[in-house]
Amino acid sequence: MPYINIKVTKEGVTPKQKAELIQGATDLVVKVLNKDPATTFVIIDEVETDNWGVAGETTTARRLRGH
Amino acid sequence: MPYINIKVTKEGVTPKQKAELIQGATDLVVKVLNKDPATTFVIIDEVETDNWGVAGETTTARRLRGH
Amino acid sequence: MPYINIKVTKEGVTPKQKAELIQGATDLVVKVLNKDPATTFVIIDEVETDNWGVAGETTTARRLRGH
Amino acid sequence: MPYINIKVTKEGVTPKQKAELIQGATDLVVKVLNKDPATTFVIIDEVETDNWGVAGETTTARRLRGH
Amino acid sequence: MPYINIKVTKEGVTPKQKAELIQGATDLVVKVLNKDPATTFVIIDEVETDNWGVAGETTTARRLRGH
Amino acid sequence: MPYINIKVTKEGVTPKQKAELIQGATDLVVKVLNKDPATTFVIIDEVETDNWGVAGETTTARRLRGH
Repeated sequence: MPYINIKVTKEGVTPKQKAELIQGATDLVVKVLNKDPATTFVIIDEVETDNWGVAGETTTARRLRGH
Repeated sequence: MPYINIKVTKEGVTPKQKAELIQGATDLVVKVLNKDPATTFVIIDEVETDNWGVAGETTTARRLRGH
Repeated sequence: MPYINIKVTKEGVTPKQKAELIQGATDLVVKVLNKDPATTFVIIDEVETDNWGVAGETTTARRLRGH
Repeated sequence: MPYINIKVTKEGVTPKQKAELIQGATDLVVKVLNKDPATTFVIIDEVETDNWGVAGETTTARRLRGH
Repeated sequence: MPYINIKVTKEGVTPKQKAELIQGATDLVVKVLNKDPATTFVIIDEVETDNWGVAGETTTARRLRGH
Repeated sequence: MPYINIKVTKEGVTPKQKAELIQGATDLVVKVLNKDPATTFVIIDEVETDNWGVAGETTTARRLRGH
């Protein structure tokens, strides 16, 4: 019954990429822990770059500097 | 001082239903654990069906198949 | 497919109370949102009183003052 | 490598305030725990007032009463 | 800068399995989203079976029935 | 009514440091957002080094290499 939460910045993640993340994360816990995929949840949170900080500054500011 | 987080797919949850979830979850911890409602938080997250996976596929895909 | 997370301080919650929280929270989303209980997860986190703060102080300190 | 998540109601938090929260939370773990800011994440979640409950009612309802 | 949280029941996950989950989840976001592994966090939470409910009952109760 | 969650590796954080994190995080949202400290929660999660990964490996492995 794993629960997997993936948080990434909201920068154009496509429906196809989301489906790949969900499939890949589910496969991972099935392969490593022998879990039942039927009760494996994957939730993707997309976070605005203003709302995600690293090293004390927003991702918006980091992107402006080329990070 | 409980904190309760309810995650559901974003599929038309109404303000009335949200108020019922908040009231019901608060009542639950008051009844079972004798907690003080004044310091009980309930946060509801509504997740896009593309972003919630079960059994390795998105809820969007599952809905298309009638789940 | 709801996911419900209940965080409370670690102060002697019994297995029976945990089972009541799980049953009650599941019933709530079934009743209010007509969700399928088979894919409803409830996770209870018990947090040490040193690790939970309200109003700027630890719950340990609050308990010492009779809160 | 701290991870800090700040949840507040979505009521007009400005980009400048978000940057101050990110800077301040990062400084806090650097000062108190001597952590490396380069691997310190801060994520801010803004929650609709309909989706945040206190004392068994939504923040929307509380705001209407002047809270 | 992805953040990935994997929650599983606390039922003997080995250090080797944890390392595989961390490596696999990191590889996933690198492959699908071209993220930088250096700022990819993976946090594994192991949850007691009394504290994880599915279908309205604890995992402890489910395990006793052979699930 | 902010909710702040601070996750750090479980490596000897003292009760005094926890109290400082709780006080500091509460002060931050009071100062930046003018929030009421009485309904500000801070929860600290301490995560085993085997359960926290960065750059695809566990913190346990990183510590062995001097990180």
